[in-house]
This record gives sequence, C-alpha cells and structure tokens, in this order.
Amino acid sequence: MTNFTVRTDKRTEFVKITSLVAKCLSKSSVQEGIAVVFCPHTTAGITINENADPHVLSDMVMKTSELIEHRDPRYQHGEGNSDSHLKSTLTGASETVIIKEGRLQLGTWQGIYLAEFDGPRTRCVYVKIIKG
Amino acid sequence: MTNFTVRTDKRTEFVKITSLVAKCLSKSSVQEGIAVVFCPHTTAGITINENADPHVLSDMVMKTSELIEHRDPRYQHGEGNSDSHLKSTLTGASETVIIKEGRLQLGTWQGIYLAEFDGPRTRCVYVKIIKG
Amino acid sequence: MTNFTVRTDKRTEFVKITSLVAKCLSKSSVQEGIAVVFCPHTTAGITINENADPHVLSDMVMKTSELIEHRDPRYQHGEGNSDSHLKSTLTGASETVIIKEGRLQLGTWQGIYLAEFDGPRTRCVYVKIIKG
Repeated sequence: MTNFTVRTDKRTEFVKITSLVAKCLSKSSVQEGIAVVFCPHTTAGITINENADPHVLSDMVMKTSELIEHRDPRYQHGEGNSDSHLKSTLTGASETVIIKEGRLQLGTWQGIYLAEFDGPRTRCVYVKIIKG
Repeated sequence: MTNFTVRTDKRTEFVKITSLVAKCLSKSSVQEGIAVVFCPHTTAGITINENADPHVLSDMVMKTSELIEHRDPRYQHGEGNSDSHLKSTLTGASETVIIKEGRLQLGTWQGIYLAEFDGPRTRCVYVKIIKG
Repeated sequence: MTNFTVRTDKRTEFVKITSLVAKCLSKSSVQEGIAVVFCPHTTAGITINENADPHVLSDMVMKTSELIEHRDPRYQHGEGNSDSHLKSTLTGASETVIIKEGRLQLGTWQGIYLAEFDGPRTRCVYVKIIKG
C-alpha cells in the first residue's frame, strides 16, 4: 500500500488526484489489475467525475451544499459537521479503477477526486494496487 | 479487461446489465474472485438494485430527478447537465461483485444496472475479473 | 467467501460491523490485499463512517429520511419502500478496504456499517478477501 497527502483550501471542494494515483501505479510496475483508492477520513470521500470544465465541480459543490445544509438546529453532533459525514457516505470512501497495459482505464473526461466536505485540512489518500 | 456497450433510450433510466456482466465472467473461466464493473462516463454510473418490479426503478428515477433538478439558473456549466454529473457521483462509477464457484454472488432480488443520467446515448461498460 | 448475519432493530439505522469483518480477515490469514464487504439486499447498503459519536449516525438517519421521504403518493411500487431502494443505491452495495500487515487499514475515526433502510430485519453480509 502507498499513500499521499492532499491539502484542501475550502470547506467543500473536489481536488483532482488522478496524477498522484497514476504515480502510485507507475511505481508498482503492475501492468494488469485494479487500483483501489481509499479515503481514511469520515468527512471526505473519493469520487470520479469531469476532468475538464471546473464549473461542473463548482455546480456539484453548490447543489450538494443546498441538498444537505451545513446548519440545521436539529443536528445533535457537537462538531457542527454532520452534513459532512452524510456527504461522505453518499460519495463513498473509495473508488476502484481498472489497470490495463500499466495505465488507469479512465474514460476521456474522467478524473479521480478527493471530495472534501469539511476543509480546509490536510487529507491522506491510500492506494492499493492489486495485480491480476 | 473486457467491455460491452449499452444503448439507453431516455434521459434518466436504469438499464439492467447483469447478464452481460455474467457473460464476461463466463468467458474468463474464473471460479473464485471479484468482478469490478466500471462506467467510464461522467454522467452515468453503476448501481445494484431491484431486479423484479420495474416500478422500483421508475420511482427511483422520479425521486432522483426531483432531488437534483435538471434546470437551475445558478448552474454555470454550459452543457446543461450539471445534475447528471452530481447524480453520477452519488451513484458511483463502479460496483464490485464477489465471484464464487464461477457465479456472481448477487442477492435474490439484486440486478446490476447502468444508471443513465444524460441519455439517450450509447454507453460503454468495463469489466475486470480478478482471480483470488 | 465468508458471510455473517446482522439483526437490525429500526426502519433506518447504521449497525457497526467492523469487528465482524475483522474476524473474517483474521480467519483468512491474509496479510496484504483487499477486503470486499458486500450487502446482498436491495433496501440496505454498506458504508464507512464515524465510529465514535452515535449522534453522527442519528443525524445521518434524520437527514436521509428527510431528503428521501418514506411516503410519497406518487410512488408506484406496491411495497411502500421505494425510498429504501433509492437510499440503498445512494449508499452503495459494497465497500472495499485495504489490508496491510493482516489488518484493515481504516482511519482512526472510521467504522464499517451495514446501512439498514427497511428494517427491522435479519440481514446478511458477504466478505471476500483478495490476497495481493
């Protein structure tokens, strides 16, 4: 298993980590298999989405924040980030990408993202390459 | 890695692909392991849900479309499908199914679906079988 | 593949299964690889989230139930649990956890949960350990 850290700048944002995952793959020299990208935090997640227009990401931030609002007087958790925990569960803690001929098999428009829901923070990402 | 294509007919729909994934498994002759089903598109996803009553799927389409509306004047992405991108992230780009005795270990009522959120289109699905 | 059952007590709740998954790993004697935790039901799912403050879980239950309401006269599925199916798709049927030195590589605050959306019921969970 390898890992790397990511610095986030906002409370909610999507930070592209495709090249960092690709570097982990490259170091492993595995040609065929899968890469599991895992986020060990409970107020962030891993997702795969648009790698070109940054407006897709800002629209997703806007809509997610509207759907699950930050402040709700009924929340009982004392840290004020219950919304972040729910967004983490809806996004998911990991993504699995197929490896072929030594490369991540992403679609043309796909990038891998750390989804930050309670930043800014320094986050860790685990990557495990399975040969097969 | 193998792949197949799926034709979708509506803007939002769930298209059953269980038998197409089972065919990929069958060709591999793998008896024990996992199957990673991956969608290389940013406005679609892979999910596992009810394989019997089509009303479950139409209810999910109705509710998802209501939660994350297609049109919102605040969306900045110019293609008019920001909702599709967010639905893709919430559904997830992949699912992993366990293989035992050469068969996908799905529950009685589970089917594997391509979740289309910006159709109609021709979509591609990647399948990777890992022996283990 | 191994499996275990979980008894749920409420319609919607998150039941911690980390130690049950760890037991499956322990029996396998695998030191390096991944663990796929899979839910073979269409009105439940698997998620990873906060393992300490139970208010995080009750806040997630409250907000999820508000977002996707149980009763909606437009639902056509006759069993009255269309909301449970949608929550299952948004949560996801599985999670994949990395194994290192014989241990699940979860973050400090992470636990693995069966997410029940149509209980109380007895649920089954499949676990597959892949060495690699």
